[in-house]
Parts: sequence; C-alpha cells; structure tokens
Amino acid sequence: MADNSRPARPVILGQNQYGKAENRVVKITRDGATHHIKDLNVSVSLSGDMDEVHYSGSNANVLPTDTTKNTVYAFAKEHGIESAEQFGIHLARHFVTSQEPIHQARIRIEEYAWERIEHSGKGAHSFVRQGQETRLTQITYDGATWEVVSGLKDLVVMNSTDSEFWGYAKDKYTTLKEAHDRILATEVSGRWRFGWSDDADPMPDWEESYAQTKRHLLQAFAETYSLSLQQTLYAMGARIIDHRGELDEVRFSLPNKHHFLVDLEPFGLKNDTADGAVYFAADRPYGLIEATVLRDGREARIPVDLTNL
Amino acid sequence: MADNSRPARPVILGQNQYGKAENRVVKITRDGATHHIKDLNVSVSLSGDMDEVHYSGSNANVLPTDTTKNTVYAFAKEHGIESAEQFGIHLARHFVTSQEPIHQARIRIEEYAWERIEHSGKGAHSFVRQGQETRLTQITYDGATWEVVSGLKDLVVMNSTDSEFWGYAKDKYTTLKEAHDRILATEVSGRWRFGWSDDADPMPDWEESYAQTKRHLLQAFAETYSLSLQQTLYAMGARIIDHRGELDEVRFSLPNKHHFLVDLEPFGLKNDTADGAVYFAADRPYGLIEATVLRDGREARIPVDLTNL
Amino acid sequence: MADNSRPARPVILGQNQYGKAENRVVKITRDGATHHIKDLNVSVSLSGDMDEVHYSGSNANVLPTDTTKNTVYAFAKEHGIESAEQFGIHLARHFVTSQEPIHQARIRIEEYAWERIEHSGKGAHSFVRQGQETRLTQITYDGATWEVVSGLKDLVVMNSTDSEFWGYAKDKYTTLKEAHDRILATEVSGRWRFGWSDDADPMPDWEESYAQTKRHLLQAFAETYSLSLQQTLYAMGARIIDHRGELDEVRFSLPNKHHFLVDLEPFGLKNDTADGAVYFAADRPYGLIEATVLRDGREARIPVDLTNL
Amino acid sequence: MADNSRPARPVILGQNQYGKAENRVVKITRDGATHHIKDLNVSVSLSGDMDEVHYSGSNANVLPTDTTKNTVYAFAKEHGIESAEQFGIHLARHFVTSQEPIHQARIRIEEYAWERIEHSGKGAHSFVRQGQETRLTQITYDGATWEVVSGLKDLVVMNSTDSEFWGYAKDKYTTLKEAHDRILATEVSGRWRFGWSDDADPMPDWEESYAQTKRHLLQAFAETYSLSLQQTLYAMGARIIDHRGELDEVRFSLPNKHHFLVDLEPFGLKNDTADGAVYFAADRPYGLIEATVLRDGREARIPVDLTNL
Repeated sequence: MADNSRPARPVILGQNQYGKAENRVVKITRDGATHHIKDLNVSVSLSGDMDEVHYSGSNANVLPTDTTKNTVYAFAKEHGIESAEQFGIHLARHFVTSQEPIHQARIRIEEYAWERIEHSGKGAHSFVRQGQETRLTQITYDGATWEVVSGLKDLVVMNSTDSEFWGYAKDKYTTLKEAHDRILATEVSGRWRFGWSDDADPMPDWEESYAQTKRHLLQAFAETYSLSLQQTLYAMGARIIDHRGELDEVRFSLPNKHHFLVDLEPFGLKNDTADGAVYFAADRPYGLIEATVLRDGREARIPVDLTNL
Repeated sequence: MADNSRPARPVILGQNQYGKAENRVVKITRDGATHHIKDLNVSVSLSGDMDEVHYSGSNANVLPTDTTKNTVYAFAKEHGIESAEQFGIHLARHFVTSQEPIHQARIRIEEYAWERIEHSGKGAHSFVRQGQETRLTQITYDGATWEVVSGLKDLVVMNSTDSEFWGYAKDKYTTLKEAHDRILATEVSGRWRFGWSDDADPMPDWEESYAQTKRHLLQAFAETYSLSLQQTLYAMGARIIDHRGELDEVRFSLPNKHHFLVDLEPFGLKNDTADGAVYFAADRPYGLIEATVLRDGREARIPVDLTNL
Repeated sequence: MADNSRPARPVILGQNQYGKAENRVVKITRDGATHHIKDLNVSVSLSGDMDEVHYSGSNANVLPTDTTKNTVYAFAKEHGIESAEQFGIHLARHFVTSQEPIHQARIRIEEYAWERIEHSGKGAHSFVRQGQETRLTQITYDGATWEVVSGLKDLVVMNSTDSEFWGYAKDKYTTLKEAHDRILATEVSGRWRFGWSDDADPMPDWEESYAQTKRHLLQAFAETYSLSLQQTLYAMGARIIDHRGELDEVRFSLPNKHHFLVDLEPFGLKNDTADGAVYFAADRPYGLIEATVLRDGREARIPVDLTNL
Repeated sequence: MADNSRPARPVILGQNQYGKAENRVVKITRDGATHHIKDLNVSVSLSGDMDEVHYSGSNANVLPTDTTKNTVYAFAKEHGIESAEQFGIHLARHFVTSQEPIHQARIRIEEYAWERIEHSGKGAHSFVRQGQETRLTQITYDGATWEVVSGLKDLVVMNSTDSEFWGYAKDKYTTLKEAHDRILATEVSGRWRFGWSDDADPMPDWEESYAQTKRHLLQAFAETYSLSLQQTLYAMGARIIDHRGELDEVRFSLPNKHHFLVDLEPFGLKNDTADGAVYFAADRPYGLIEATVLRDGREARIPVDLTNL
C-alpha cells in the first residue's frame, strides 16, 4: 500500500470536481392520448471542500455520485423538465444549497429531439428521433451567480456555391490553387452564453431562445456569400448577437468539411462547377476554424476549446 | 520470404471478393440557382477469376481498386446519380461487362439526405443534413441476373405507450416482472429485396419505392398495439409486403432500446405511467429481435445477420 | 390498432431469432492474492417455434431476453469461464436442452484481454487492458451438432517494405502508378471454423488454439513478401490451415489501410523509400480484400460478409 | 448576400484560431533492414492578426490550412520525428517566426505506438499496433515562451480488490450501499505540463519522460489501497510530481468504470467477492473524477475540462 497520508512533499491539490456523468433520463408527459417527450443526457459535476477525500480518502464531504444520479431521476418527476436549462437550474441550485461542502455545481445536458410519426391510428404517442443536431446546455452555479451556456453540435450544413477562397498568404510550402466557386460545408459546434446571471432578473424563454438562435445561425450561413469560412463564422455569430439580446457571447468550432473537385480530365471529362460537379468528400485532415463573437463590453468566458483532439 | 507458390498441401481458396470501399461521392446538379445534392458512400466488390492473385500474387486479372474508385467518380459525371439504386446498376454492369475475369459485381451504397435551409436570400443552394436515417442499397449482378436489396439503418422510433409484455415462458433464471404499459423503442435496421431481376422487365421507381416503404414502416410501428417487439416487427414487414408489390422480402434487426421505469419509491415518489413517467434509457445489454417477412412463394435471400457483433 | 391476426394475405414469416445482446460480464477468479480476469461481451440469440409471437404477440414460447441475460451471469458463477468458447457451449446447450420451443442457440462473445501491471506492492490484482485485438467466438448448437467459429478483429499490422503492386489490369479509368516498394498495412478481421462438431469427440484446447492461430497469422503476415494483399491473405490462411489441424476454414476481411507516399517535390525534397519516407495515412476510401481459405474437402460455412457497410 | 462589412453594431471579435487538424503522418526510418515507425496525428492551430478575414473575408494574412498541412509532411522529411514533442516544437517555431501576422501557434499531436512482430524471416520491418493508450502532446509558442503539455488517453486499468467506498455524506436521495471490497476501474485521461518554457534552458528528454510518467502512473494506481477514486487520482498525480522534476502540473479525468456485483441470490447463488465474483460492467452513467495536482508554487494552467460531453 502506498503512503497516501497528507504529503510533506511539495505537492498541491488544484481544481477538482466530481459527479455522475451521462445520466440518460427520458420524461414522458401525458396530455390525454397526446404524449410529449424530453430525452436528456445529464452530467453532474460538483466542487467545494474536497481536499480530504483526495489526501486521505475520507468521504465525509462526498455526496456519492450515485446520489447525484438518483437526484436527476427524482427531479424529473418532482419538477418535470420544462426545458434542459430550467432542469439544470433546479439541479444546480439543489446541490449547492443542500450540501454545505459543495460550493459549486455544474450541470451539462445533451438533448435529443423527437418528432411525431404521422399516422391514421388513435393517439399521438409515436415518435421518430429527429437526428439532426444535438442540443446542449451547461449551467454553473456557485450559490450566488448563474452562468448558462447553451448550444448545439453535429449540425452539418452546406452551401453548394457562393463560396470562394483566394488572395491568401503564400510561402514555400503553399501549393493550393485559388478557388472561385467551391462547396462550403461544415459541422457546426456552437455555444452561446446568456447574460442572465441573477435570480432577481427574469429568466429568458429558453426554448424560444434556442429555436431562434438555431434559425439565425442557419440563415446567416445560407445568406453569406463567403470569401472564407472565418467570414461566415463571424456573420453567424454577429447575427445572433444582433438579434438575440439575451445572449452576450457566441463561440463556434467549425471544421471545414472539404469537398474536393475530382480531376476527371484523365477520363476525358470536364468537371465544371457551372455544369454541376462531382466532389470527393474528405474525412481528414480538415481545416478547423474557431472564434468567439462578443457583445461589446461583455467578457469572453466560453472556453477556447470546444473540441479536444 | 514464405513460400507462396501453389501449395501441394491440401488448402483450397474459397469465395473471394475485392474492391474499393467507402468512396464518398457528392454530386451537385444545378437547375439555375436551384441546386440538388446526391451524397453517397459507394463500396465496390468484385469477384471472378482471381485464383492466381491469391496463389502467386500475379495481378494480371486484377483491375486495381483505385480504378474502381475512379470509375465511381467518372460515372457520377457521365451518368449522373438519378438514384442510389440506378447508380449502382450502372457501376455493376460496367465492371462485369468490361472486364472478362470479373464475373460478379456487388455495389453497396449509403445515402445521406439533405434538406433545404429556408432563408430570404437569393438562390436555393443551402442545405442542412437531415440526419435521421441512413439509406442503403446493395446491387449484385452476375452478367445475367440482378439482385437489388435496399433498406435503411439508424432510424430510432418510440411508442410511449400501447406496448405490453407478459405471458412469457419462465424458468429458474426468470426474474422479470410483467409489463402492461411500457415504452417500446428501437433503432430500425431494415433491408428489403426487390423482385426485379431481369433487364427485360421495367425497373421499379427506386425513389418512390423508398419513400413509401419508409412511410409504411413508420406507420405500422405507430399503429400496432404491441404485445411483443416480434409482433411489431412482423406487422411492419407484412404491411410493406402487402403494399409494395415490387418487394418480395423484408428483414429487420431491431434492438429493443430498453427504457426502464425508475424506482422512485425510496424518495417517496410514485412513478406511474398513467401520470407520465420517468425512464432510464439503457445502453447495454439490449434485446435483439431479428426476422424475415416474405411474400409467399418467394425465396429468402437476405442474409440472417445484418449486424455483426 | 392494426390487425395483427394471422394474415389471409400471402405473407410468410421467415428465419427469425431473438435474445439479449451485449451482456458485459466480468469474472474475477482468486488464487490467494493473485487474481485472474475474464472480461466478455456475450450475445444470446435463440430460434425455434416462434411463429405465434410474431403473428399474435403470444409470448407463451418466449423465454424473456432478460432471462437469457440472467443466465449469462449465473453461469459465470456456476460454471466459471474457462474460455469464451467453453462458456458459450455451456450456454447454448442450456437453452436448447431446457426450453422445448427453442431449437437452436447461437452465442456470440467478444473477449478483451488484460495484462498485469508490474509493481512492487503486495498482491497481483492490478491490470491494464491490452487493447490490441478483440477476440471473438460464435457457438451454434441445434441439439445435435456444434459449430464453433472463433476469430479476432481490430488487429492492425504493417510491413514497412517487402510489398509491391504492379502488373495489374488497366482500363480507361486506370491512373494508378505501379509500386515496387510500398507500405502494406491492414486491420485484420478474421474468423476460423473448428472441425469439432460432436460431443462424442474431444474438444480442442480453445485457449491454445487461439494463441497459436494468432501467432501464425502474424508470422505469415510478416514473412510474406507481398505482390498483392490477396497473396498475403492467402498466405495467412494457408499457414493457419497447415498448422492448426483443429481448424477447417478461415475467412479474412482485410481493409487495405493505404499509406500514400507524399509528393514533396514542390518543396525541393525527395521522398525516397530507400532513405525512409513520409506517408499520408488515409481513412477512406480503402481497398477491401476478402477471402476464405479452406481445408480440402471441407465445406465453406463462414458467411461471406464479416463487415456490414 | 448578407452585409459582411465591418459592423457599426456593437459586436466584437474575440479569441480566434485556425489551422489544419488531424494530419495523419507516418514516418519510416531505415537502419538497414531494421525499420522504425513514428505514427502521428498532427493538428495545427494558429492565431494572430486575423481580424480582417473575419470582418471582410480578406485572406491577405491567412496562410492556408492546406499550407500548414504541407508543412507537417515536409518537416517530417526535413527534420525527422525524434519525438512528438520535438516535432511540434519545430512546427510551432516555424509558423510564428516565418509569418508576421501569426503571433501564436499551437500544435496538438496524438501518437500511436507499434511493436515488432516476432518472426523468423529476414529483416525487422513488420509491426503490430500496440493499441493500449494514445499518447498526446500540445505545444504552444508565442515567439518567446513555450508551453508543453503531454499526456495520454484510453488507458484502461483495473484493481480487482483493495478498493472500498464508505463513510460518505447521505441525503434523502442516497440509496447506495457501502462497499468494502469492490473493483476499481477507470479509463485514464491525463495531461502533464512541463516546467520547460525557455529556449535558453535544456529540453527534457521527451521520450524518457513519457515512459517514466506512464510507469509511475500505473504503479501508483496499482499500489494505492483505495478508499475513493479521488484518493487514487491524487496518489497518481503526487507520485508523478514527486518523481518527475521536469513536470509542474498533472490533471486527470477519470471515469469510474463501474463494475456492479450481480445479485445472484434469486438463483440460489452467493456472489461473494472473497470467492471470486461476477460483475456487470456498466456503460452509462459513470462517476467522473477530475483534479489537478501541482508542484507547490507553480501555476495551474491545464484547462479544467479534458473531456467535452
């Protein structure tokens, strides 16, 4: 057995957090024969006065991760799931206010959307998973101040024209040819931070905010004649900040899903974009464009890396 | 170096096939400012007079897999992609009729669906990937007879009621309690085989066939009051065979995506389905229900295993 | 509710099977302070007299998949896990002999290997997952005859030289240049069928058979000067059939993990293999080479497709 | 077309970075017939004077991501790959010093280990991928100061005894029973930051540092009698800081891979750990334990989240 007693050696415990990750909770609400689904993946992460469990293994301050799991399921029944954000707020408040050693709670939630199957039978309790994007939220609470960052991932979009790339810097390793009509495609990973932080202020309408933000994101992508993916990213972020007053900050991580024009000349074919072209959709490597767009005067708090290689 | 010459030892070469797998081809068709996408993943597999390449490494009969890849891209330009099935037929015919040593070609295709982004800008060339199911087809041709098996995977469906499970066999290892109101959810993997096999007969309308078969599948799932997932599977298959005369055979592989009622009694809560319940969506293990439904008098040819553990 | 009664319509139920898939069972055996692990993923699939559950939802013949799961865990305690094959044989025999409506059982097992962590503390009960390949077996039993197919997947191998590819067929779509010194790399997926089928005959030593077959596979890969991946595949299969008398048939599915020589000439660099070269390891597309190698006089029974696109 | 000109609106561009991600480069070095492999996945991320490309789409300051890819391959030939860290340092220095608008470069690298296939043939150029963990490094350079964070992921470890969990906090949602002999298993994701930051100081031996840090990590895991996963985490981190003077900080993200004792009492079986027990290896949810361990007096700089849900 190793010596796990508090070290004389010059070693310090830094930031630490713990909890139960990926609690898959499905809540059905019945309105007669019409049912509604909320389908979430909830991860709890708590921090506070946790030195002893690291130094000596004393669990006196440790609410078991199993208990945090139970709380997720019990709260889904007790409070329902109005929105992922509201549900996370209930949970975060509970852990911080009910357990003295816990000073901060962070709740991360993925939400999967379902749509109704149209049919001629009775009732409205049949669903098919939409499958388009995964909705995300992260609620952090320290007993005084809230931080809510929502977003999405896995949303794949493409403009089949109105994209160019030229006029770039060149060095001895540059071989790329300029493009004046290319496909622009990306798999959007985005996060947006709400200005709301104080229980004294009215909460945003979380569901409406998500729907409108996704709509602006898609429309800005579609309506931007693009000279670079950076420009499109900024247009998406600026449009969201412009239209959604409840948001202070947006960050995107946009892989450039390259679609390369195939060289068909060896086969006597002209692969001309004007005529409708054939592309090779590549996997790796891919350009990766990441940036934050902020409301003037607000602080940037969304972490730089949304993706971990 | 090992001795790779034709063995005196009693070892025989059996079935073999080769080709380039997962050619990701995107074809854009332009109708003025309105564009259309076909987004495919095409795998070519050829077989025939290939003993020598296995015994001695002589490649004289081997059309390189790189060439089969080139052919996919060239054909996307030359013939366009009317449907995945039609595209596969072009390819299969080409390999079998143009290369003497190749006696059979099998083309497998995955197709990813895109929908238009609604916006107020000019043009109609912005898309978002639908993300729901992956469409599949497999075309096999031996120079005389066609076999076309189409289908889908990744289609997740749920009935939040109208499902029961009771009256089952019991042995000493049975602990399951009977359920009279449960969630029934599955991720549909289905394949359906067309009766069409002869160039002399008119081809089915591949796009219409797919759309209608998916619709029947979903509606049968929704409209079946289920006493077991097997019953639902059969209802889905029978409805397709009943309504789609072009199909002779359907096979489904349906994982039972278990949603377990959470026991909330320790917390003084009643988790009653009638009132809208809370479920734990489990990952593994899962029931796996697989069956073929056939038109009477037709042969079963879809392989038993659509999933490989 | 749809009409699920036995159809007057000309629809037939074909092959069907059901069971609990992916039961993750870990068995620890203690020999004092020295522990041993068996770490399996067990899938049960049963078939037999199951028409009624499909036609009417009557579960009278259906042993619940939950019961098959319980049986896996109980048998791990009652019988131990001597080898994946032996464990599957116990399970298959049990289901077929104890449940009259069940005529056939198929058990599929994945096994994950662990090695000991070397350390200076007490005991020998610390392990690190090996992570190299996943061992596989499939046992099928119909009450009279056994079929055991074992194998592996995820085993990535590379020869950095002694591989060529030239002298192949060419058509108008051929642009590939001949290669006289290339990397040959693949991710081996292999299955081998045992001749053993009768309880009256002595069983093979399953653990020894696996270890030796993997060794022959790797050595044949390493020692074969390769003119094509087909030749290497055949050499691997033939060597196994030659050396392992307990096996009648081997099938491989070998993706050609292409490593392309990078063209460095634009940067004034010669990327010469003799001098040690730089390669781009590509993802998709990939050549896919599949074949069966058989002992003369034996029947080929391993299915053609080990991979489902 | 949207208005992408510099906005009058109060929107600000925040942190931004771009580059080519996941360049898969394999370098073979030949020492006669004995070959050596370096197998890397390299991601480049650059930042600097990049406002215009976001506001107007002007690419004048943008070295194409395609060029950064070319540079990776050219440098693998020009400089070789002595270690992932050394290779990343070459790349980062190049981008910052050769392109005026680029003020910072961050290189992330994954490395895959291979071992030799033992065989009796000629040469030593046959390899099998080890498959155990993925080695990681991240090099950041701003023209003056270096930050090197290395680490690993995917390393799965287990102690089959010498782990307990009891004495924890309880609330109304606590149902967990105390455990006095449980399995402790986790999939280690760890990062460690080097003190080295200045070109004037001698670099660490990157290869030796990795090998020793992994060894200490494994041994601390094995030798710690654990009362909580937090305690084990701290023991691992403290041992590394104690023994590896070149490291200032370690952060771990440790999912608690739960192995639940199966209740076999309904089947008349006692599932006793002392006798060797049967466990269910669960997927989700899982406890997630994360913490930083620091050398006293050093700053914590490794980001809190190594995993993004």
